[in-house]
Amino acid sequence: MGNINLIFYLAPVGSVIALLFALGFYLKMKKESEGDSKMKAIAQYVREGAVAYLKQQYKVVGLVFLVAAGLFAFMAYVLKVQNMFVPFAFLTGGFFSALAGFLGMRTATDASARTTNAAKKSLNGALQIAFRAGAVMGLTVVGLGLLDISLWYMLLNYFIDHKTFGLIIEESQRLHFITTTMLSFGVGASLQALFARVGGGIFTKGADVGADLVGKVEAGIPEDDPRNPATIADNVGDNVGDVAGMGADLYESYCGSILATAALGVSAGFGLKGVLLPMIIAAVGILASIAGIFMVRSEEKATQKELLKALGRGINFAAVLILVAASALTWVFLPENKGIIFSILSGLFAGIIIGKATEYYTSQEYPPTKAIAESSKTGPATVIIQGLAVGMKSTVIPVITICAGILASFAFAGGFTNISFGLYGVGIAAVGMLSTLGITLSTDAYGPIADNAGGNAEMTKQNPKVRERTDALDSLGNTTAATGKGFAIGSAALTAMALIAAYIEEVKAGIGMMITNTGIDKIAIGAVEYTAKSSKLLVAKISHMNILDFVNSYDLHIMNPKVLVGIFLGAMMAFAFSAFSMEAVGRAAQSVVLEVRRQFREIKGLLKGKAKADYAACVMIVTKSAQSQMVLPSLLAVIVPAVVGIIFGIAGVIGLLVGALTSGFILAIMMANSGGAWDNAKKYIEAGALGGKGKDPHKAAVVGDTVGDPFKDTAGPSLNILIKLMSMVSVIFAGLIVRYGDLVQRIADQFK
Amino acid sequence: MGNINLIFYLAPVGSVIALLFALGFYLKMKKESEGDSKMKAIAQYVREGAVAYLKQQYKVVGLVFLVAAGLFAFMAYVLKVQNMFVPFAFLTGGFFSALAGFLGMRTATDASARTTNAAKKSLNGALQIAFRAGAVMGLTVVGLGLLDISLWYMLLNYFIDHKTFGLIIEESQRLHFITTTMLSFGVGASLQALFARVGGGIFTKGADVGADLVGKVEAGIPEDDPRNPATIADNVGDNVGDVAGMGADLYESYCGSILATAALGVSAGFGLKGVLLPMIIAAVGILASIAGIFMVRSEEKATQKELLKALGRGINFAAVLILVAASALTWVFLPENKGIIFSILSGLFAGIIIGKATEYYTSQEYPPTKAIAESSKTGPATVIIQGLAVGMKSTVIPVITICAGILASFAFAGGFTNISFGLYGVGIAAVGMLSTLGITLSTDAYGPIADNAGGNAEMTKQNPKVRERTDALDSLGNTTAATGKGFAIGSAALTAMALIAAYIEEVKAGIGMMITNTGIDKIAIGAVEYTAKSSKLLVAKISHMNILDFVNSYDLHIMNPKVLVGIFLGAMMAFAFSAFSMEAVGRAAQSVVLEVRRQFREIKGLLKGKAKADYAACVMIVTKSAQSQMVLPSLLAVIVPAVVGIIFGIAGVIGLLVGALTSGFILAIMMANSGGAWDNAKKYIEAGALGGKGKDPHKAAVVGDTVGDPFKDTAGPSLNILIKLMSMVSVIFAGLIVRYGDLVQRIADQFK
Repeated sequence: MGNINLIFYLAPVGSVIALLFALGFYLKMKKESEGDSKMKAIAQYVREGAVAYLKQQYKVVGLVFLVAAGLFAFMAYVLKVQNMFVPFAFLTGGFFSALAGFLGMRTATDASARTTNAAKKSLNGALQIAFRAGAVMGLTVVGLGLLDISLWYMLLNYFIDHKTFGLIIEESQRLHFITTTMLSFGVGASLQALFARVGGGIFTKGADVGADLVGKVEAGIPEDDPRNPATIADNVGDNVGDVAGMGADLYESYCGSILATAALGVSAGFGLKGVLLPMIIAAVGILASIAGIFMVRSEEKATQKELLKALGRGINFAAVLILVAASALTWVFLPENKGIIFSILSGLFAGIIIGKATEYYTSQEYPPTKAIAESSKTGPATVIIQGLAVGMKSTVIPVITICAGILASFAFAGGFTNISFGLYGVGIAAVGMLSTLGITLSTDAYGPIADNAGGNAEMTKQNPKVRERTDALDSLGNTTAATGKGFAIGSAALTAMALIAAYIEEVKAGIGMMITNTGIDKIAIGAVEYTAKSSKLLVAKISHMNILDFVNSYDLHIMNPKVLVGIFLGAMMAFAFSAFSMEAVGRAAQSVVLEVRRQFREIKGLLKGKAKADYAACVMIVTKSAQSQMVLPSLLAVIVPAVVGIIFGIAGVIGLLVGALTSGFILAIMMANSGGAWDNAKKYIEAGALGGKGKDPHKAAVVGDTVGDPFKDTAGPSLNILIKLMSMVSVIFAGLIVRYGDLVQRIADQFK
Repeated sequence: MGNINLIFYLAPVGSVIALLFALGFYLKMKKESEGDSKMKAIAQYVREGAVAYLKQQYKVVGLVFLVAAGLFAFMAYVLKVQNMFVPFAFLTGGFFSALAGFLGMRTATDASARTTNAAKKSLNGALQIAFRAGAVMGLTVVGLGLLDISLWYMLLNYFIDHKTFGLIIEESQRLHFITTTMLSFGVGASLQALFARVGGGIFTKGADVGADLVGKVEAGIPEDDPRNPATIADNVGDNVGDVAGMGADLYESYCGSILATAALGVSAGFGLKGVLLPMIIAAVGILASIAGIFMVRSEEKATQKELLKALGRGINFAAVLILVAASALTWVFLPENKGIIFSILSGLFAGIIIGKATEYYTSQEYPPTKAIAESSKTGPATVIIQGLAVGMKSTVIPVITICAGILASFAFAGGFTNISFGLYGVGIAAVGMLSTLGITLSTDAYGPIADNAGGNAEMTKQNPKVRERTDALDSLGNTTAATGKGFAIGSAALTAMALIAAYIEEVKAGIGMMITNTGIDKIAIGAVEYTAKSSKLLVAKISHMNILDFVNSYDLHIMNPKVLVGIFLGAMMAFAFSAFSMEAVGRAAQSVVLEVRRQFREIKGLLKGKAKADYAACVMIVTKSAQSQMVLPSLLAVIVPAVVGIIFGIAGVIGLLVGALTSGFILAIMMANSGGAWDNAKKYIEAGALGGKGKDPHKAAVVGDTVGDPFKDTAGPSLNILIKLMSMVSVIFAGLIVRYGDLVQRIADQFK
């Protein structure tokens, strides 16, 4: 046992190493020159805008967190349907996520002008700066995530011994308490991610669409033109949406998968080893990622192809490393369940296949995107129909893949013998997929940096070669980002499934609290009655209740109308949530249009380039719009699981989560891929196909691209969060629902 | 008992009465004049085109039916996983559905010129002809549907006595055999409906979009201009898509709900009364519908508003009548379950609310459609985004309503005491909703007749007043059609749910056959082992297995990865199926464009109106295109449930059905409402808003309308079929899956 506790320290140590490397990369990047004064000025505008946005966002979110923490404290200390640690764990989860987002975005805004400057000399130099800056984000996310988990584990491990509260009587029950408590820290990360993704997504596309509508269409000036007052807001958007938003999203998946798997380890009877395995794998993954990051090197005069190879080398190296290490760890930790090694492998494979499918459906090299471009010959309507059809078709392979991944990771872990083993396998597959997040997130996060660098080059009128190089970097990023997206959505699905399973553990904890509070020694759950000599023993008995008993007690079968209604409502949530976020983009864009028109009208000489635009005003307006627009969809995601629980009980909640997971996953992929394919179809035409820029087919393709913007950068990614967040929210309300939920049943019972 | 058997004869008698009234209406309509020779000629073209289309369609479908019947015969006589009646029941189901479609469409094409002619005199006269022609369709559908059910019941009731096959030993088991066999007749209706809906949907929108693209856009000639060779095809499309397609769709729901409820009546232990109640309600519904149809009368000089009132009066009268009658019947038949009366009421209410919601989201009188029109100011992209958002938001009320409807009809029937009672309640709610189909389908079917009448007026250059009157009729139909659509989709959802429940009965029948074939006297289903003294007794035992035992035996709980994978795949099917049908429309439209271009080029003087277009060639080309395009999506819908069953077994199939039901229902509503709202936003602008016709906002709105066409008339309605068909296909493969399915489990068991 002591041995294992020693190995555990790999987790905090690994997280600190990640943070140290992040710091090192940051300091090294800061030493590079930001270029001339014009470049510095533009970078400064973007930086200030981004910081102003985040400040405003954190104000709103801070308020929400305080209210929520108050509610959870009320639940913990007055209603006693949660334990005393929960409000604090919730707050730290949110705080660390916010910190990771802030640091990552700050780094990105510091790096963009430096990337532009380096691009004056060589492609490789620019890549190194942008990629290392992305690595700061990647390592900060995994470092802070794992640090928070480690600290809470140490804290709870110290405070909760076998006699705490005079209740806890054996090791498995102690671990059950620790892991179910830790999950509530994931709720904080999840809520933070929601606001970051939805708010950031609305900001980035509101600014983008607004800038295009009024700049390109009305005033006839090109993209990234400094005369357009919304240009800086557009660049700020890349940072708050694609860097901070994505970081928070993956922070949530990362923590969620580790925490859910730890909880499932207890329920599978793997004891402490099962709890620590995901953390250790994550720690080893950090080391593998750092090694991979250093593998991304190339000669100074490297071509784009060589750089792509270098990136791929880094990611693959890290993946192989983690696979070997995870196998060894599983071999040592869970020798009786070696199949889990193949569970991890299944998860990794699933991620790769989804990534390849994404690339196929959205790259202009393959038929689907070309078909969209072709359809532009008959106008915008056919572009839209074809794009939607491509998006819908593109869900087939990812769905089959994720199904195969779930089934394989379940089966290899022995799920067909013991369902708890199988669910642990699904969780650990998600952990495996996310363990190399340190490097995969780096390759994702450097894209927007390159994008911003390009904007900087444009606005400061650099030699066209510079822009060419940053564009090359950007398109380089698109290829690796496809794989990254595959991992993001795939891991979100596996994590969500693990969370649904972990929710069952939370319900058991909730029943335990109810027993303790009421001092009963028998309890009927569904048709099954549980009794024990004392309420303490009854709590212990409940914590050992296996999943099949649980499922039968709560009638979690698919012919139960409460389950079915839950699935209906969950699927609907995905659609309603998408609708709200798309409409929000429209409104934010409208506010940009009005502001830019005002500036063109009131600032004399602006359009002639003789006066300066008020960039900050634009940023402020999008910020306010995004903040006010993100509230409704966010609240919806938080309130619905609670309301469904109150009305339909546990069965309704689990149905809801399954419905949201399945429909949300599919809708997210459809929207991301339709959007990506429209984007690239437009680029394909701009590169010369079908008459090139300015002709009718191009105009039709631009319509597709504009529709695709909120699809792929707002609604789609937000769904990623929705499917995890709803599980997380259910987790925190589990105790409440156990005690006060299922009104339908209570009413029906009156008539019996 | 004899008493009940006597009451049963209400069903065949009711069906014959329906057919007689249909004949009467038809003959009376035929006596009216078709107008002048030009009008007759146009009507003749449309009639010939429609008949040519149906002939071709029935050829393809006939082939598919022969192959399928052969397969089922192989399953019944060689593999012995189905009973000997199934292949024949399957064929009659398909045949009667096809007959209903043919007769309805034939009547519609006979009525359109007569409606035009009557519109020369008065609105009321035109309404009477169009509506009575619609009533022919309505009454033929319910008449043939109930007749087929009655005949099969009489046949099986005669042949299957208590000693048949030396197996059947008691009444409930006999009824179980009869009802599960009859369900397979629904499979025929379902498959026919699929081809009618998908093929008809592709035809109608392929012709419409193609005619618009090449006529309005390229040649600059107005809609319904006789110079456009695709004009007749467009009018034919209304008949094959909106009349024959919709008729087959509702024929399927009608039969499916009655048959599923009958099967659930046995499983609920209601015996013969439970089996006959849905049929009797349907029979009474026919009489109520006929009474309602005669209520639709108005003075000769009635205004549009007065006519709308008259229509509403007819529908409401029928609904109240059936409610009273159904209550009385339930009171007599199932006095111990009077709550079922409220189940029926819940279904009716749900249908009305969904209809009202549809109207709200798609009528130009309310904010959603106006918002789409507003968004046209910033171009087509915002029209699309706004329209998709409206469609997505519009799913909220219908989902909540159908959930409430399911829950209420379940609860009122006593589902929270006995789940089988509850599922019977859901089935009977669907039967109640569909019982007035005779009149609601009439109000649906007369819309396309009025549409065609308008086309005839346009092409034969009648006084503008005539076109005004047919347009008034058309818009009159749109209001009642919204309610009709609510009932169609609502009843499809309830029917699908009842079918999923009935599927369980089929599986039990399949297990019974396996026991009989192998002569075993014990069988393990999941973790539960069933034994009996003889295989005959074991079959009896299995047929009495209650739903909860079944659910537990097959691990039909929501944490079973096979169930979850099924839900994923089912949800994906809805998206993939939509993608294929939308793409098919695009291809069909493309073929029209090429043909019309060819005629403009090769037929000299055509554009100047000096030569005649070759209408038949256009019809033939769309027909061929629609026929070849409908095969892939149709096969997909048929093959997937079988493949999922083979791989994942019963749990996977039920998951699949639930996933398809939930996502399919939501996606169908979204597509129908987005499409409807785009259509009406365009009409709103054409009526003078935002600068009216020809201005930029109008052009943007036309893009929305074009995207909406395949949404609302092809993909959306086809999903309606998909969710029912997949259940039906599963029903017919149940025995096969029981015997040879669930490869995943078989493989997993090897490793245990």
